[in-house]
Amino acid sequence: MRHFTRLSDLGVSGVEAVLGAALAWKKQPPGAHLRDQLLGMVFFNPSLRTRASFEAAMLRGGGHAIVLEVGGGVWKLEDRAGAIMDNDKPEHIREAIPVLGRYVDALAVRTFASLADDDADAADPVINAFRELAGVPVVSMESAREHPCQGLADLLTIRERCGATRGLPVTLVWAPHIKPLPKAVPHSFLLTAAAAGCGVRVAHPPGFDLHGEVLEEARRYAAESGGSVTVTHDRNAALAGSRVVYAKNWGPATKSVPPAEAAAQVAAHKDWLVTGKTLAAAAQEAIFLHCLPVRRNVEVADAVLDGAHSRVLDQAENRFHVQRVLLHDLLNQKKEARHVHVA
Amino acid sequence: MRHFTRLSDLGVSGVEAVLGAALAWKKQPPGAHLRDQLLGMVFFNPSLRTRASFEAAMLRGGGHAIVLEVGGGVWKLEDRAGAIMDNDKPEHIREAIPVLGRYVDALAVRTFASLADDDADAADPVINAFRELAGVPVVSMESAREHPCQGLADLLTIRERCGATRGLPVTLVWAPHIKPLPKAVPHSFLLTAAAAGCGVRVAHPPGFDLHGEVLEEARRYAAESGGSVTVTHDRNAALAGSRVVYAKNWGPATKSVPPAEAAAQVAAHKDWLVTGKTLAAAAQEAIFLHCLPVRRNVEVADAVLDGAHSRVLDQAENRFHVQRVLLHDLLNQKKEARHVHVA
Amino acid sequence: MRHFTRLSDLGVSGVEAVLGAALAWKKQPPGAHLRDQLLGMVFFNPSLRTRASFEAAMLRGGGHAIVLEVGGGVWKLEDRAGAIMDNDKPEHIREAIPVLGRYVDALAVRTFASLADDDADAADPVINAFRELAGVPVVSMESAREHPCQGLADLLTIRERCGATRGLPVTLVWAPHIKPLPKAVPHSFLLTAAAAGCGVRVAHPPGFDLHGEVLEEARRYAAESGGSVTVTHDRNAALAGSRVVYAKNWGPATKSVPPAEAAAQVAAHKDWLVTGKTLAAAAQEAIFLHCLPVRRNVEVADAVLDGAHSRVLDQAENRFHVQRVLLHDLLNQKKEARHVHVA
Repeated sequence: MRHFTRLSDLGVSGVEAVLGAALAWKKQPPGAHLRDQLLGMVFFNPSLRTRASFEAAMLRGGGHAIVLEVGGGVWKLEDRAGAIMDNDKPEHIREAIPVLGRYVDALAVRTFASLADDDADAADPVINAFRELAGVPVVSMESAREHPCQGLADLLTIRERCGATRGLPVTLVWAPHIKPLPKAVPHSFLLTAAAAGCGVRVAHPPGFDLHGEVLEEARRYAAESGGSVTVTHDRNAALAGSRVVYAKNWGPATKSVPPAEAAAQVAAHKDWLVTGKTLAAAAQEAIFLHCLPVRRNVEVADAVLDGAHSRVLDQAENRFHVQRVLLHDLLNQKKEARHVHVA
Repeated sequence: MRHFTRLSDLGVSGVEAVLGAALAWKKQPPGAHLRDQLLGMVFFNPSLRTRASFEAAMLRGGGHAIVLEVGGGVWKLEDRAGAIMDNDKPEHIREAIPVLGRYVDALAVRTFASLADDDADAADPVINAFRELAGVPVVSMESAREHPCQGLADLLTIRERCGATRGLPVTLVWAPHIKPLPKAVPHSFLLTAAAAGCGVRVAHPPGFDLHGEVLEEARRYAAESGGSVTVTHDRNAALAGSRVVYAKNWGPATKSVPPAEAAAQVAAHKDWLVTGKTLAAAAQEAIFLHCLPVRRNVEVADAVLDGAHSRVLDQAENRFHVQRVLLHDLLNQKKEARHVHVA
Repeated sequence: MRHFTRLSDLGVSGVEAVLGAALAWKKQPPGAHLRDQLLGMVFFNPSLRTRASFEAAMLRGGGHAIVLEVGGGVWKLEDRAGAIMDNDKPEHIREAIPVLGRYVDALAVRTFASLADDDADAADPVINAFRELAGVPVVSMESAREHPCQGLADLLTIRERCGATRGLPVTLVWAPHIKPLPKAVPHSFLLTAAAAGCGVRVAHPPGFDLHGEVLEEARRYAAESGGSVTVTHDRNAALAGSRVVYAKNWGPATKSVPPAEAAAQVAAHKDWLVTGKTLAAAAQEAIFLHCLPVRRNVEVADAVLDGAHSRVLDQAENRFHVQRVLLHDLLNQKKEARHVHVA
């Protein structure tokens, strides 16, 4: 059974196929391609943009979505094997996940990083438990390690605005914030841009390394796609000639900075605010991207977000377009045994 | 692009048209008149009645609704231009609103008055930001200044029970409560009844004036429709001969009473409780209305709510009937550029 | 108007009819049998499994559901006649329930026991107010007294695995927990198994009696169906030869144990943990059931839940199958006056 919770589920050729289909469907919508399909959307963390875009993709395709908000500590899941469940977690994933899978045709899941241990987050235990136990296809609405639908929406926006992406110089620049954020979005932009053949440059302050496994994976995609991956602490060097400026905050590497000191480390780099001057260091026709939500004048200056280079609204809209392609692919694969049960 | 967030979006002739269509559709339902239409419902404040009636109108018309509950401080929106966003508001309306507009065909919004400044509430900044930025039609599910769907449901109920409304004497009577409530509902009853040609009488204790701009607007409608608007502190005079008794609490005018003293001012008028005796001061065949929820025996006595004159359940049901007409009108206007994006 | 909030709404022949229809529809799904039907789902208490299975039943049948979460104290309902409503309950059931009934074709309701008074819980005031006031059919998603859809799902699972249920020995065994739970689930298993003709044995520690009225009702069903009901404190005697082991915690009888001492009473019986040894006391081919969620190694040992006898996932899935039959029956009865209003 195919799932989509990480870029490795698609690989280089899969990214190309999704972008091509999304571009085609933006011109010629697919009609009721998800007729009679039911998606269960499970939120361990709140969401508005992701929820609205996934639900819209199901409904506009003629299907349906059930939204289950399990965040806020209402319904914590135990995942330890052999646990004596006498704490605040009333249900084990070994029951919760397969039961939900009995009622729907696919499950979409959102769960966030702990921010306490990059290695544990990169292992992505919750979303991988869904893959193992759901009995139906699983799609990520962001997990501890990646936010793969965001990465595809990013690349769709670039493809629309810059044309062919092979060798295209694109830059991911770290941005300040009031607190350290997860690495899922920068991971996914890096992986997807590398798979699309871009010349990816990543610029961040010392100590803010992305996860080593993800960097290695991106380099493998680049080797296959004709792209490249460069990491530097020199923002201007990373921006020179770049056609895309992608701003995003993330927290320091937990190996370099203890979690208790992470907020102070983030606060120490307010000079990484993305301004018109930052944009001017890139190519003249560069486009500006951010996954949203964005803290104006903390991460990015008003002049950039409101300026002619910004494509952040198109980028948010493209979440819908890549997701309808992914949902089509997942929901139309050969039906498994579950349909003996609920049909 | 047409919106419906205030009565001035309809005017006198528009009110007549909505009431006529709603009466016709109560006899002959319109079928799947909203096929393939998607409404995004954004709640800054909680709701049950409004939510159920809007969602029912979309679903019964063959369309769909996405419910986004942003209340409870989960997702606060910054609206100040140029703000340095380092506080508890992680997203600016300049991104949040147009992004949601990219996924849906129309947005319905509920947001409440601050109760701290009547002038600021009458300016209605949040719902007006949606009008400006959504890119799709916007319909109000109650805002700081008005609750226009409620006003139309009120008049539909009167039209059904009393026939022609031109010159019909109707009375809005202030009612006690355990705390001061917003003025949106009384504003909308006043505006809609005046637009429908009623002889509107408003009775409230001293210091509880409705907003001056709204009173002026109501008088303009009355001049056009053949109605009238009278305000008094003498409840019995206002009720004499009246065919409709509409009970509602609202807080004192912030110009007259500082917000800190508002609760005490409300508590000082418990004798405005609406009883059978109050009703007896009106015309013998008068109907009783209240927008609900109602605090029994604090605002209105059991005998009135359970008595033969009460039409509060029909009035609540009529929310559905006027909203299906309004949604039909908003969702079937000529499609804009957004449909180049999401189709 | 027919409702389904307690087993007495079906009786012995009704249980048989629902199980038969559910078995048939598992083989041959009914298609869009709920076309244009709208279910309002009202949750006074949170739910995931119940919500997902009800919503899936409506959507897969071509209908729609509106989910209204009134739990968490957001919207408390006053139910006392004549109350002066100056407390934290802003709406009376006399308005709230009939208004919701005006917008939908049926109402599904979840409300829990108080755990303070078994007699008051068995009287089930909230769900009975819905029956009286809704104006549309009402279905229980669990109430203070019963969880009738769960009981039917339990028996469907037994019917599938064990064949004919007349005279079939089945055992409900009390299980430990970290706190006392409501009696609705054990009540419904007892009632439905008795109505299906099973030889029902109930085993619990002293002081944990199920409600006397429910036991009497079960015995009446058993007399009609050819079944029997036995209650004992001797677990091994109750298990000997039994084909079904159903584990469930519930709190002590409020007549025997003051609510303040209930948690201590539950904690005093940790030795009732259901293990492989417990299962071995039953028939060799016995199946294991639990309504979920289950606290592993507190209520039931891993070895039982993960072993070859467990049917808990099928049992959860069967919620969907019995509910689609019940919803079909409720929603397709002759339409009442409400459809003069909302059509």
